[in-house]
Amino acid sequence: MEFVRHTLPSGLEIVAELNGDARSVALGFFVEAGSRDETEEVSGVSHFLEHMAFKGTPTRSALDVNREFDEMGARYNASTGEETTLYYAAVLPECQDRAVRLLADILRPSLREDDFNTEKQVILEEIRVYEDQPPFGADEKCKAAYFGAHPLGRSVLGTAQSITALSAEAMRRYFRARYSPSNIVLAATGRIDFDALIATAEESCGVWERFDAPRSIRPAEPNQKFLTVHRPEATQEYTVQMSDGPAGDEKQRYAAKLLARILGDDSGSRLYWALSDPGLAEHAVLRHYEYAGAGLFVTYMSCEPERTADNLQVVLDIYRNAQTAGVSKEELSQAKSKVSSRIVLSSERPMGRLSYVGNEWVQRRRYRSVREALDTVASISVDDIQSVLTGYPLSRSTTVTIGPLAEVPQPA
Amino acid sequence: MEFVRHTLPSGLEIVAELNGDARSVALGFFVEAGSRDETEEVSGVSHFLEHMAFKGTPTRSALDVNREFDEMGARYNASTGEETTLYYAAVLPECQDRAVRLLADILRPSLREDDFNTEKQVILEEIRVYEDQPPFGADEKCKAAYFGAHPLGRSVLGTAQSITALSAEAMRRYFRARYSPSNIVLAATGRIDFDALIATAEESCGVWERFDAPRSIRPAEPNQKFLTVHRPEATQEYTVQMSDGPAGDEKQRYAAKLLARILGDDSGSRLYWALSDPGLAEHAVLRHYEYAGAGLFVTYMSCEPERTADNLQVVLDIYRNAQTAGVSKEELSQAKSKVSSRIVLSSERPMGRLSYVGNEWVQRRRYRSVREALDTVASISVDDIQSVLTGYPLSRSTTVTIGPLAEVPQPA
Repeated sequence: MEFVRHTLPSGLEIVAELNGDARSVALGFFVEAGSRDETEEVSGVSHFLEHMAFKGTPTRSALDVNREFDEMGARYNASTGEETTLYYAAVLPECQDRAVRLLADILRPSLREDDFNTEKQVILEEIRVYEDQPPFGADEKCKAAYFGAHPLGRSVLGTAQSITALSAEAMRRYFRARYSPSNIVLAATGRIDFDALIATAEESCGVWERFDAPRSIRPAEPNQKFLTVHRPEATQEYTVQMSDGPAGDEKQRYAAKLLARILGDDSGSRLYWALSDPGLAEHAVLRHYEYAGAGLFVTYMSCEPERTADNLQVVLDIYRNAQTAGVSKEELSQAKSKVSSRIVLSSERPMGRLSYVGNEWVQRRRYRSVREALDTVASISVDDIQSVLTGYPLSRSTTVTIGPLAEVPQPA
Repeated sequence: MEFVRHTLPSGLEIVAELNGDARSVALGFFVEAGSRDETEEVSGVSHFLEHMAFKGTPTRSALDVNREFDEMGARYNASTGEETTLYYAAVLPECQDRAVRLLADILRPSLREDDFNTEKQVILEEIRVYEDQPPFGADEKCKAAYFGAHPLGRSVLGTAQSITALSAEAMRRYFRARYSPSNIVLAATGRIDFDALIATAEESCGVWERFDAPRSIRPAEPNQKFLTVHRPEATQEYTVQMSDGPAGDEKQRYAAKLLARILGDDSGSRLYWALSDPGLAEHAVLRHYEYAGAGLFVTYMSCEPERTADNLQVVLDIYRNAQTAGVSKEELSQAKSKVSSRIVLSSERPMGRLSYVGNEWVQRRRYRSVREALDTVASISVDDIQSVLTGYPLSRSTTVTIGPLAEVPQPA
């Protein structure tokens, strides 16, 4: 596999990992636009805008967009996060040009007033369902408590208030502030014809107007809180716990991911053996997430309400024990096997490589081959894990529980 | 890619699609045991037995099984259907032997009395959740109405009654009746070392006792019914509709799959444009399923209760119109693009090929390469689609609706 790149005069970067053995191509426009670029007034506009991209362009109706993806037999979608909006498609190699043209076209959507108003109802319904169904927006509530007024504390979906108040003109302003070609990376993986890719991108995106679109990265000032939200209609109690973790620009983030596997992977981890396997919790996992200038450990737990207090104590004891006694070589070795095997298995498909290659470039302007990724995992030592445990104490967290309990005692 | 096979003296067949370009291997034991092999008394025993396989063997505890899969970083699981129980794992090539040994071991589970009783509660909870959450077991209820007393009419999970009454001894009897090596296929795909595979299988499975395990294939005698099940607490009305379709041994099944895409794919189909896109239904799709000696078209629809009657009429009109006017070349061409692109995309991973290669062998004792599969899709004509529409009228169906409506008028 070979890595190649090219920058258009407009600033749009094209990066590709070429793999002649692949039978498909994966293509994605990574736009540096997400909830952390929003003010409270336009909270949710990045995600809403992503929806609008599929509602028509100056040359295509929404029907045309849908039909053309289907005619190619494309596997396609889009997603919005805190830092990136991604539009992607996986197609057979002979459809490469057509898919690039179509994706490029929807990145200049018409944003028509009536489509905007129709879609607004869809988004409001999405927010309502998210709040009304388990886990009742627990994740967003914990983020808000943990990050406070920092942009990372806001929901990607926005709020019913912000979306209701949002105007099409405000969305157009946001579009003109974030969707500069200099703010967009076109990533491609698989059996890519790179010369053709450059030519098609030049033709489809060359005319996009370039402007300054800086992102302000405010340092986070996390809180430590313990909140209980009462939802009498729930049958389970849902807990989300957040604590500081290595950020996207810190080397320790690799060790952080292995630590999360050791303590809280879905199976075979300390949380698994202590809570999930014996049936004390339906679900108990630890994850690590990284952003520019901020990192996060998140514990998710759901269980019968009456078990909540005991389980929270078990979680805290597991974290404290790890902080003082560290992890074993066997645990680290098992976590490495899991992570390495995931890297290799996901690398077998161009779609599996797309998000890795694209995000690596967007976040760090760097390419990492499968080999390099595996070498990094192999190089992590028990001491590296210990440094993370010491530098980012999991026991110092913000906790939100949502469910039938009116009160939950804080573990000691 | 090369196809190879070998049969052990015990009757266990080993089939493999070798792909030197792959970076992983996928391994699966396909056992010809499923709900259609069960009597009403032991309904659900195949699925329950699949759970028990992970609860320990004479040489491994449940913990050992879990830990060993984790040590390999395996992506592994099992599934039970009407005709097959599948145990599989995807691992790095260096773990091939170890994964085969482990999978082989759990196929001779201890079936200990106390594990059996503990797991019984897990299964009963699974049944309860399945019945209590949308779509409230609509699929199973429609199968029961459509197939009547035929084994295909029974739930894979079993019923609360059958599982409660099931004894460990009855499960052991079922095991001794179905898990003969002559009833099992070991399929493998990816970067497989086939000589090593045979040697490991011989060593791990060679001693398995062989016995006769015939399956009786009773012809189905489908019913036409229209039933409404009242669930006042539901917010949506859920509809499942079943009608006769080409069986697993009929050539028309390829055309049937394309027809289902044309009329009822998730996006870009007639049901999509008529119901999903305009928001009249949350979900409206048509699928084709095949069994030995029986085939099935299934329509799934969910919508606001007050729209149910109108939507059912729309569905019926779409099916009637297709039966009389057929489908267009453009529709067929789009469906072919979708299906071909899915075949190619899923073929990029050994795991994607495993179920295809394994099921093809179990069902038809035949190997089909990606190329052959694509050629078959390409060869289907508009006339072939018409034959399916005429031979298997979608308008002659059994319908079950579940939701807040006490009564739903049958479309005319």
